Amino acid sequence: MLLEAIYHHPKQHWAYAYDKDTVHLRIRTKRDDVHQITLLAGDKYDWEKTKMYLPLKKWTSDSMFDYFTCEVKPPYHRLRYAFHLESDSESIWMDENDFLDEEPETPSRMFEFPYINPVDVFTPPAWVKDAVFYQIFPERFANGDPSNDPEGVLPWGGKPERDNFFGGDLQGVIDHLDYLSELGITAIYFTPVFEATTNHKYDTEDYLRVDRHFGDADTLKKLVNLCHERGIRVLLDAVFNHSGRTFKPFVDLHENGENSKYKDWFHVRKFPIDVEDGIPTYDTFSFEPLMPKLNTENPEVKEYLLKVAEYWIKEVGTDGWRLDVANEVDHQFWREFRSTVKKANPDAYILGEVWNESSPWLQGDQFDASMNYPFTNAVNDFFVIDKMDAYQFANSIGRQLSRYQLQASEVAFNLLDSHDTARLLTLCNGDKRKMKLAALFQFTYLGAPCIYYGDEIGMDGEYDPDCRKCMEWDEEKQDRELFSFYQKLIRLRLNHAALRTGEIQFIEAEPQGKRIVFERKNDKENILVLMSKSEEPEQFNISVKFDKYIDLFSGMEQPVNSGEISIVVPAYGYAVLQAVKG
Amino acid sequence: MLLEAIYHHPKQHWAYAYDKDTVHLRIRTKRDDVHQITLLAGDKYDWEKTKMYLPLKKWTSDSMFDYFTCEVKPPYHRLRYAFHLESDSESIWMDENDFLDEEPETPSRMFEFPYINPVDVFTPPAWVKDAVFYQIFPERFANGDPSNDPEGVLPWGGKPERDNFFGGDLQGVIDHLDYLSELGITAIYFTPVFEATTNHKYDTEDYLRVDRHFGDADTLKKLVNLCHERGIRVLLDAVFNHSGRTFKPFVDLHENGENSKYKDWFHVRKFPIDVEDGIPTYDTFSFEPLMPKLNTENPEVKEYLLKVAEYWIKEVGTDGWRLDVANEVDHQFWREFRSTVKKANPDAYILGEVWNESSPWLQGDQFDASMNYPFTNAVNDFFVIDKMDAYQFANSIGRQLSRYQLQASEVAFNLLDSHDTARLLTLCNGDKRKMKLAALFQFTYLGAPCIYYGDEIGMDGEYDPDCRKCMEWDEEKQDRELFSFYQKLIRLRLNHAALRTGEIQFIEAEPQGKRIVFERKNDKENILVLMSKSEEPEQFNISVKFDKYIDLFSGMEQPVNSGEISIVVPAYGYAVLQAVKG
Repeated sequence: MLLEAIYHHPKQHWAYAYDKDTVHLRIRTKRDDVHQITLLAGDKYDWEKTKMYLPLKKWTSDSMFDYFTCEVKPPYHRLRYAFHLESDSESIWMDENDFLDEEPETPSRMFEFPYINPVDVFTPPAWVKDAVFYQIFPERFANGDPSNDPEGVLPWGGKPERDNFFGGDLQGVIDHLDYLSELGITAIYFTPVFEATTNHKYDTEDYLRVDRHFGDADTLKKLVNLCHERGIRVLLDAVFNHSGRTFKPFVDLHENGENSKYKDWFHVRKFPIDVEDGIPTYDTFSFEPLMPKLNTENPEVKEYLLKVAEYWIKEVGTDGWRLDVANEVDHQFWREFRSTVKKANPDAYILGEVWNESSPWLQGDQFDASMNYPFTNAVNDFFVIDKMDAYQFANSIGRQLSRYQLQASEVAFNLLDSHDTARLLTLCNGDKRKMKLAALFQFTYLGAPCIYYGDEIGMDGEYDPDCRKCMEWDEEKQDRELFSFYQKLIRLRLNHAALRTGEIQFIEAEPQGKRIVFERKNDKENILVLMSKSEEPEQFNISVKFDKYIDLFSGMEQPVNSGEISIVVPAYGYAVLQAVKG
Repeated sequence: MLLEAIYHHPKQHWAYAYDKDTVHLRIRTKRDDVHQITLLAGDKYDWEKTKMYLPLKKWTSDSMFDYFTCEVKPPYHRLRYAFHLESDSESIWMDENDFLDEEPETPSRMFEFPYINPVDVFTPPAWVKDAVFYQIFPERFANGDPSNDPEGVLPWGGKPERDNFFGGDLQGVIDHLDYLSELGITAIYFTPVFEATTNHKYDTEDYLRVDRHFGDADTLKKLVNLCHERGIRVLLDAVFNHSGRTFKPFVDLHENGENSKYKDWFHVRKFPIDVEDGIPTYDTFSFEPLMPKLNTENPEVKEYLLKVAEYWIKEVGTDGWRLDVANEVDHQFWREFRSTVKKANPDAYILGEVWNESSPWLQGDQFDASMNYPFTNAVNDFFVIDKMDAYQFANSIGRQLSRYQLQASEVAFNLLDSHDTARLLTLCNGDKRKMKLAALFQFTYLGAPCIYYGDEIGMDGEYDPDCRKCMEWDEEKQDRELFSFYQKLIRLRLNHAALRTGEIQFIEAEPQGKRIVFERKNDKENILVLMSKSEEPEQFNISVKFDKYIDLFSGMEQPVNSGEISIVVPAYGYAVLQAVKG
């Protein structure tokens, strides 16, 4: 047994409460090394009476490790525990500090989960598990009210540049809610809508006013109400890491320097504030002088921003916040932010922009989810750019699962592109078949999928500004076949809980492989997903547990012979098969 | 290179800010496997201009792993990074997700420390690094005011039982401050002093009143002031996990059951509150019906307890809190507790009772330290009960260091016994030589040492109640030689910053070994500590870096020949040698 590979920590995603009565434990071992792990657990205050043994199950794997897990419901909410690991040739016990040859007699040096305090349980809003998001960049979605167009507005559909405007606004979204309902999405994430100078509005001038070119608070309220009537939730973008250049406190700082009463609202390294050799003398987003970093430790700034966070939820009834550059803001601020937001709306979804592994923010005290770019990368690497084979892809997915509490994976924000990347179709070099596979995986995996506006009708675009083109509203120019594929994906997901929150198990994912098979299952459903990115038709032979399967795309029955499904899928083909149970 | 052994996480003790400009990074490898690790780091927003390479140094080890570390000061407080690891035969790069053969070209998939936000930096009070604590169990330290003795008080020095009283009080402590000054300690930790029915007072009846048998708020204030005049800080014990049976809200609950307005102050599983088969129908400390667990999520309870936390700091000027059964209370409560306490006294020390690995509470948002029983166990296992050899001991210390941010190790609360264990001398079977070695290690290691009252004059005692004997004030019966040894240890520590906060490196610690040599060093001092628990005299031959050393116990010069110190120490002997520089 490779002891150096074994890892457990009695906190975070290794030991956490899933709900107020349930603890999940995980332990990592070298891949294919340990075949049986048993938990020894009990209440330390009455060990002999409460101790028990519980088998763990192998839950997921990555390139180097297996991850085992189990669920425990300690009757008095306290848990001391140790693990018993068995390989072909060895048997070993593991407590908090050591590997032992014998079962420990007392719990004194075991791991401890001291007490399940409900307030510490990470409880993301339940609706997100079932949501399908749609991301809208308001300046480019639809121009519903030409009267609020900015000066110099260009004709709809022109070439997007970093600093041009096409007049998109909130009325435009209102005008196209039927379209969104037809597509079937259940939540919208809007990039910023507050007063700002740029087309992307990430340089906020006034956090308490809707941008004049987008409408006003009433338009926003109307939009949110209309969305809610259709069962669509609305997320706004909170740019709290930095403000814009025209934000009044920064204007004041610029004018009054060290004498400004807003001096401590920012991070000034040296007065006068200036840009020297391309580097501002104050902290900014990136090195962008127009986006001064806010001092979120300053009680006045904190009070102001928390008021903003609460204001829009209460004023227009939004369903949460997406947080821009969230990882560069202090944890303390986000904790208070969570407390404020959840008080205003306990069901609010808090989604932080973090491109990396995000566990520090996903412990229950800060965000509910982060922009899941590691997911984006894995799907891209396998389905789109062939940087990974099937084995590596499954390992990458396994590793991602292993990094988070289950409730975090269930509400992950799984995107394949955004205003900050090239568009999926462009990444696919225009190959719709690849795009469909990527999207199919997105819609049959744990976590809420998000469609970037226009992807569903075949819009393409390189990295910013090209990915921010005007939405194509001419049906003739829309790829309706793709649209209908996305509709199907959405319905598929919404109709099958196992695809949303069921367990996932890879059944096929080979080195050098171009195909994957995985199962999603819950108490009621067992669904097999087969995907091939081969240029040739592929024959799948899959041992299955049930006698009858239905192809969820065609509605046709899939025969089972001698416990095996044999199916040929075309190049870049797929099938989603649901077991029909006795 | 054993890849399965390599571990890094871009947070917690693996990547943390030591101060507002400095990031510490650590990485773990299989022991004796990797000989060189280099950091590649820069600012992601201007990678090419900012990227740099920095060597890590091997910092500590445990039985299976080496831990490498480095310190970085990112000019714009942001850091992307990867590691380059080299063994005899291999060279490999490590980013957030993968091991790579080549240096990564872009920082996009590297580890990230997004921004050093000062409020997130774990900043324990500086004074603790230099403190020597003394733990007092007030009922048993000294009876300074017989007028407040409880009924049925027994003559001083009788046999301690779980429920008897000897009349110790705060005036008794005041009367013996000269004694404490003579000993040289700089801080006192008092077990609870608030109104309660037991002799240990862990069953609080009134959090806002000093126990009538100990004195009153004025006595406490006088005591604190007199301590402060002598440079002695005072820590009180906050029993916030549970109250006592006579705590008014619980009395009310007992009387009024489901109709009590304090119903939600506790965790009642079933009404009427009762004890069934030894198990209370409400949550308690352990299964002790007299100690009902407080519902610290209830805003009223929270408000009450936080008021208590603030009250005593402001009212009598105490220097912090020791928190009883701290690991069973919710993290949310402790975060608010920290904020309240640090607002009342930014220099307050927050010490939680956690017997296990404590990293979840030592991230800067909750405690400054925990009762360091893992340290107690290691010292006991090696010096006292011979369960560990020197190699295992050094490994155990290395592992403990590796688990915490450096600032946590610097203010750890290192005790060798307490009111909750047998006394050190008893654990040593009365062998003072062992006790001295254990104490010498305690005083020459990182973290604040704590002496349990009476240890310094040779008091013994089995586990509770025997470890809670009356303090021996008859000098004839005190072990004055031991007292003077402790005096020396304290002076040694206070005179040499390297023993408090210097780096530690084990120079000798062999399998089957009964001796250790380690170095403590800072910019100014290099100190060697030699310890032998052999029954025979032991010859040490140590290669040294300087030409001249002084024995800090004898004051004599220790000769160096050909770069080597040769020294014979007696059975259970030791030497502390300071280099005399240039």
